[in-house]
Amino acid sequence: MTLSGELFIGTQRQRGGAQAFQAIDPQLDQELTPTFYEANREQIDSACRLAAEAFIPYSQRDLAVRARFLRQIGANLLALGDELIERAMQETALPRPRIEGERGRTIGQLNLFADVVEQGAFQGTIIENALPDRKPLPRPDLRQRRVALGPVAVFGASNFPLAFSVAGGDTASALAAGCPVVVKAHPAHPGTSELVARAITQAVIQCELPAGVFSLLQGTSVQSGSELVRHPAIAAVGFTGSRSGGLALLQLAQQRPCPIPLYAEMSSINPMLLLPGALQQRTETLARGYVDSLTLGCGQFCTNPGVVFACDGEDFERFVQHACDALRQKPSATMLTPAIALACEQHAAALAALKGVERLAVGQKKHGPNQGQPQLFITHARDFIHEPRMQHEIFGPVSLLVRCANQDELLAASQVLQGQLTITLHLEPQDQTLATTLLPLLEQRAGRILANGFPTGVDVGYAMVHGGPFPATSDGRTTSVGATAIQRFLRPVCYQDLPSALLPQSVQN
Amino acid sequence: MTLSGELFIGTQRQRGGAQAFQAIDPQLDQELTPTFYEANREQIDSACRLAAEAFIPYSQRDLAVRARFLRQIGANLLALGDELIERAMQETALPRPRIEGERGRTIGQLNLFADVVEQGAFQGTIIENALPDRKPLPRPDLRQRRVALGPVAVFGASNFPLAFSVAGGDTASALAAGCPVVVKAHPAHPGTSELVARAITQAVIQCELPAGVFSLLQGTSVQSGSELVRHPAIAAVGFTGSRSGGLALLQLAQQRPCPIPLYAEMSSINPMLLLPGALQQRTETLARGYVDSLTLGCGQFCTNPGVVFACDGEDFERFVQHACDALRQKPSATMLTPAIALACEQHAAALAALKGVERLAVGQKKHGPNQGQPQLFITHARDFIHEPRMQHEIFGPVSLLVRCANQDELLAASQVLQGQLTITLHLEPQDQTLATTLLPLLEQRAGRILANGFPTGVDVGYAMVHGGPFPATSDGRTTSVGATAIQRFLRPVCYQDLPSALLPQSVQN
Repeated sequence: MTLSGELFIGTQRQRGGAQAFQAIDPQLDQELTPTFYEANREQIDSACRLAAEAFIPYSQRDLAVRARFLRQIGANLLALGDELIERAMQETALPRPRIEGERGRTIGQLNLFADVVEQGAFQGTIIENALPDRKPLPRPDLRQRRVALGPVAVFGASNFPLAFSVAGGDTASALAAGCPVVVKAHPAHPGTSELVARAITQAVIQCELPAGVFSLLQGTSVQSGSELVRHPAIAAVGFTGSRSGGLALLQLAQQRPCPIPLYAEMSSINPMLLLPGALQQRTETLARGYVDSLTLGCGQFCTNPGVVFACDGEDFERFVQHACDALRQKPSATMLTPAIALACEQHAAALAALKGVERLAVGQKKHGPNQGQPQLFITHARDFIHEPRMQHEIFGPVSLLVRCANQDELLAASQVLQGQLTITLHLEPQDQTLATTLLPLLEQRAGRILANGFPTGVDVGYAMVHGGPFPATSDGRTTSVGATAIQRFLRPVCYQDLPSALLPQSVQN
Repeated sequence: MTLSGELFIGTQRQRGGAQAFQAIDPQLDQELTPTFYEANREQIDSACRLAAEAFIPYSQRDLAVRARFLRQIGANLLALGDELIERAMQETALPRPRIEGERGRTIGQLNLFADVVEQGAFQGTIIENALPDRKPLPRPDLRQRRVALGPVAVFGASNFPLAFSVAGGDTASALAAGCPVVVKAHPAHPGTSELVARAITQAVIQCELPAGVFSLLQGTSVQSGSELVRHPAIAAVGFTGSRSGGLALLQLAQQRPCPIPLYAEMSSINPMLLLPGALQQRTETLARGYVDSLTLGCGQFCTNPGVVFACDGEDFERFVQHACDALRQKPSATMLTPAIALACEQHAAALAALKGVERLAVGQKKHGPNQGQPQLFITHARDFIHEPRMQHEIFGPVSLLVRCANQDELLAASQVLQGQLTITLHLEPQDQTLATTLLPLLEQRAGRILANGFPTGVDVGYAMVHGGPFPATSDGRTTSVGATAIQRFLRPVCYQDLPSALLPQSVQN
């Protein structure tokens, strides 16, 4: 089957009514066929209305059907075979093993949410039987469960064409919660998005679900995304992308006549703190591990280690030397889109221009269009503390070392850190006292605390938190990865004295 | 001990640095001594800074200490004895049994949260041990728990001087979560607030907690509340009050450089749906129960039944007749404040002026200042559906009957309902089919669904939901009453591969 360039309004395909656009192969800097067409206002409205119509029937279906649906999407994704892998490679310049791994992760994520749905605990059922003789007042029969919020708009991410896009974590967790989903595909990979949408709509038909459970909109303009977020049928939004994009959508979501929650995962510099014992004992291993993590996938991860703190001294000097040596060996690599490659260069230049920042080393020269070149900078903690712009995320293989005069300055620098997805401690037993002082400070500033590892690599399971205080995300009370991500699309309802014939099954005795 | 009119900045008392004000006895329409003084900017800042200093030490204390603290506050409240009861009666015009009952509820609520803290399940601990041999990638050791957000600002409510004020549900759940609290007292009951603050600060000292765990600010101006919400140390806000007040604070919370969650419980008209079987079989009982619920406490409950839907016919006519008869017997009563009494009158007049609305009956004449008079209105569903202003909450003993031509119109009217705290169904077995159709629609629109009861009376336990979709609250994913209210002040953190010496106790093996 070839790509059609069409939208999916429910299970119906149609050509978008607004402007045409094409995907770009960033490696060749060439447009790819076919032509895609942006959804117009009527089409956005149709998708949202269909989602609203599908909401009650879908959310009322047996949990077993919902679980089967999620697994079927995964099976259909796999059945797309190499067509999916190759299109995603073309549209993103990501290598085959990465895309194949990401497909595995995406299917695993769908299966995890199928398990979560079957287990049923996500509904948070609480039953308090009536106590007619309680004093001073009798207690009614009270039962709580969590119900689905309603249709969810999902914005695909540029950097994970499968795992954070059309059938990614936001979609999987929203569908698992009982919410229909309207996806706005990321314009960098419309072909991959169409293929994945095909897998989902096929599963909708196979599971005999209402057509509006899933729609796919294409488009490049800010306008169509805004209309989706403002549509009265939309009850929540999932977004992974830039801080400016996330904040713009957040404002729209908050300013609606009926405001809705928007879960934007936006920006994080994922600080690493190298405590003195670890820095001394593992200088070279740490330096190499850090540079590997920094340059993995050309640094295009939300958990990329963008800043490293350590106390000044001989160990630090050796660490810097090893890191520079390792970085200089790293090749430049094609980034996801021309815009991302350009922004990386510009943001690195802006960092270089800040007072007190020095460029230490760069990776190997660029050898093709749209490449990102690894870059390492250094500054002093006293400068970092007073310059919030050093905390701006640079999406790409660019990182900043922060030299702290002593442990007090390390603590002081930790205290000015903005909200993060992750913070990593490297420590040895002799660092225990310092680590114990740091931990409660770091907990306040990140969704995940790692020890002796690297933040890239986000396990999809029950305990994961991929979230964090603002500006890492727009809602630090949530995670976008792992089983608890489903909670974003639920709200509690209490049933008081309902006759058992009327009680929803999950709150029956 | 007499009232001092002072603030509590931590355990230190000081006179507010801004303008003077006095409480008013609404029954006598007279000012009460002593004079209170609004907190100035420096005092607000001091309270918030102290709270920030107290945050880590307090949140790190043993859960057993936190539980003891909550119980001690309750014991201290009770020890205030009649001084508290009498001051609250003077400031609110609420009768003794109501205030005594509310004190019991407030202490019960503190004890419930002490239990919740001791049980520990609120932390949502999830442990995934490392799987070093997992393919394709090993799994690290991952542990999730929920940690406190940080200092919480609480705005006391006018209508529950104890249960939704200084030591009310917001304060109890925030303290239980591990968050210091800065309370902005409601200006209608500053004396009651001072007494309760005395009980809390005494407990802070008895439990040897950091002074900043609790502060009390007084004031009447919008300005001081705004400064509190905008203070960088504040991490979340709890508010119970008017829609305009809630929305104004919500905007401030969202527009901060670092936005924070604001939990505002704002407005609800708590629809009751009288299904045909119930209307036929229980006409008079329903009418009397409804009017009793409507006029209880002069209608000054967030769960007051403000609108009633039923299908037209003889049964409905009889219901209307009985309701009018019952209402005409109900006395006018003193409302909480002069402003509330005035607004009730104005809003009832605005409702009366809407096209298609007719005034059916009024209660007994006012016989003193600041009284609210029961009022009953009627309209047609076709008018209700097209006039959103009929859905504006009127705080007081005022309610609207909506005559539906048939069941389809009842369904159509249900579908235009805005978010509510509660929706009540009155039904008999023969109403099962209609009720089954209605339930999923109603679930989308309310936090609590009741059958064959009245919405006033909110049980404080584990299963309660006192919340609901916008505009009932600013965040329909939460409840402000019951054990799950603690979740508002928590966020998840994941610990990856932390050495066990560093792991917080609640996520250890």
